[in-house]
Amino acid sequence: MKIVIASNAFKGSLSAKDACEAIERGFNESLLMPETESFPIADGGDGTLDVWSEYFNGELIKVETQDALGRPMVAEIAELPQKKFLIEMAEASGIKHLKKEELDVTRASSFGTGQLIKAALENGAVEIILGLGGSATVDAGLGMLQALGVILSDAEGQPLGNTANPLMQVTDLDFASLDKRFKKVKFTLLCDVDNPLLGPNGAAAVFAPQKGASATMVKKLEARFESLNQLLKARIGKDYGHAAHGGAAGGISYILMAMGKAAVVQGVDYLLHLIGFRKSLEGASFLITGEGSLDGQTLGGKGPSGVAKLAADCGVPTIALAGKIENEVALNKLFAAVFPISNGAADLRFLMKNTSADLERTSRQIGNLLYASKSNFWEAG
Amino acid sequence: MKIVIASNAFKGSLSAKDACEAIERGFNESLLMPETESFPIADGGDGTLDVWSEYFNGELIKVETQDALGRPMVAEIAELPQKKFLIEMAEASGIKHLKKEELDVTRASSFGTGQLIKAALENGAVEIILGLGGSATVDAGLGMLQALGVILSDAEGQPLGNTANPLMQVTDLDFASLDKRFKKVKFTLLCDVDNPLLGPNGAAAVFAPQKGASATMVKKLEARFESLNQLLKARIGKDYGHAAHGGAAGGISYILMAMGKAAVVQGVDYLLHLIGFRKSLEGASFLITGEGSLDGQTLGGKGPSGVAKLAADCGVPTIALAGKIENEVALNKLFAAVFPISNGAADLRFLMKNTSADLERTSRQIGNLLYASKSNFWEAG
Repeated sequence: MKIVIASNAFKGSLSAKDACEAIERGFNESLLMPETESFPIADGGDGTLDVWSEYFNGELIKVETQDALGRPMVAEIAELPQKKFLIEMAEASGIKHLKKEELDVTRASSFGTGQLIKAALENGAVEIILGLGGSATVDAGLGMLQALGVILSDAEGQPLGNTANPLMQVTDLDFASLDKRFKKVKFTLLCDVDNPLLGPNGAAAVFAPQKGASATMVKKLEARFESLNQLLKARIGKDYGHAAHGGAAGGISYILMAMGKAAVVQGVDYLLHLIGFRKSLEGASFLITGEGSLDGQTLGGKGPSGVAKLAADCGVPTIALAGKIENEVALNKLFAAVFPISNGAADLRFLMKNTSADLERTSRQIGNLLYASKSNFWEAG
Repeated sequence: MKIVIASNAFKGSLSAKDACEAIERGFNESLLMPETESFPIADGGDGTLDVWSEYFNGELIKVETQDALGRPMVAEIAELPQKKFLIEMAEASGIKHLKKEELDVTRASSFGTGQLIKAALENGAVEIILGLGGSATVDAGLGMLQALGVILSDAEGQPLGNTANPLMQVTDLDFASLDKRFKKVKFTLLCDVDNPLLGPNGAAAVFAPQKGASATMVKKLEARFESLNQLLKARIGKDYGHAAHGGAAGGISYILMAMGKAAVVQGVDYLLHLIGFRKSLEGASFLITGEGSLDGQTLGGKGPSGVAKLAADCGVPTIALAGKIENEVALNKLFAAVFPISNGAADLRFLMKNTSADLERTSRQIGNLLYASKSNFWEAG
């Protein structure tokens, strides 16, 4: 009998690979002793670079860039075979590099992400796969454009610098000096949200507050998005303001769409497609997945939900393991069973240190339970 | 398909009955929807009075007595059918009535337990079932004897009072005025330990430290036990100093054995026998048990271990649920699978408030898992 393991990272404590290994150890130590296959997964957020590099023999390349507030830093991109490059936006422009009190949508810029893209172009990229999770920016990707040579200017016709959110001031864009290689390169966007750039379900209304914007600031950002969209509509003759996915990562996917770089895929689905995951499910009795925390949001398109949907398609039930479970009624619509891995009273710090052992124990006990269910339950009729 | 539920109380948060009901709710809400039967259990410790009264239609009777330090209090005993009485020693002489700083083996006396026995005799008891868990005393039951009319005297021939541990001073026992009814009544001791009164595995060495005794005090108690045993050996011509079970509850079972009241049974086994539990296991696919905390000690003779052994005898695997699991390798020798019911970071106070919901959730998910294992696992071959 075969069990397929496909776990996300447990954020802050265990990589996707280590999580899969802990689950695999647990099942192998159980009386069930199943055949196991492990697939670390990532959905375009944290850990995507590592997971993809592992699958596709990627080479990590260090790039001098800047964080969302313009501070110099070194980030990594991955060169995959056939001159494809994987870039995680959050590696440069991520919220993870900022302290909570540093969150500032009027300053945060995607310029650093543009530098990562430029580095990929300099290395001969024919395709850039861009992971959109975890950004600190709400700049419609204008910072990125600056890094790629686009000149943005304000109402006085003065060019804008690269240490603030150019969205706040821009009134004109000059594409003349845009990196020539950018026009040729193919873009694939790993994106888990449907939200458009504009409107009540848009990037300003839904995501800006998570990046530190006040209600007043949300209105201001929305107005700036509107102006930008008018400007581009006049220029390209098409309106992407309400196109699905445009609101991802502070609107960076809006600008990429407007520039014809619009191939949007669900992060985890695309990975599963590339690694031929569906085939691995053939003959499997269970899929085991995991993530640090599972709740109603998990169902929106994160890793565990992606693998579970594919497994359901193949008639394989999924067991989900997590540090914490919330809203299990909703989770049970997709997951056959959900188990938290904690053991008694413990604070988060302790649990995060013990994730590997807790995952292994829970998997071992589930294996033991399934073994007992075979010999004493269903055979009894 | 049938699932039998037999849970202990979750000490401090849930009675055995409430625990069984939470587990039952969980399974009934799961896709498995099994036939369920519930058996709250108790092993002679906390909760025994309630559990037994429920099974046997017992009537609780309030008795004025005293705690281990001689303070007046009201405790309950249960009158069962046919003039059998159930008494929990801990209800009067229990460690649960003392603050930690009040623990004092030189003072703690089983006199209060003697008063409970006397009350049962006054109500016409033909059999007394005495639960021995959780006592604060190391007095070889001498306090109990005083309450029943035995005169104890010190080296000067002065009778001893009832507010200190008489073991420390006694040099003679006068049984002349022992309650006449005591001689006729049958005793059944619910006892989970094998330890004898004397020696390195005896009541002083093993249990006195848990009741606050220092190493010096342990030696002193051992010497006093030796003297008492010499005295009784000379009197009755038999040596019970090394007899199994004599060390239970500070030696109270030693003195009862010496007086011919020696029917010792394992608390949970005896209850299971009386309620015909074995028959309920017929045709069951799983037994579910639970307790606040499960560890290596659980295997010594506590409730979950008792039900699991009986179930194993009948070929039924047991799943154990607990607030916290320790030493699962040992536990898996008896339990097919063990699961903690906690969910993420939480302190003990929070967990104890949530025990019922956590038990219900864990049971529901196990039910869902077993359901999935039926349709997608074993049927696939």
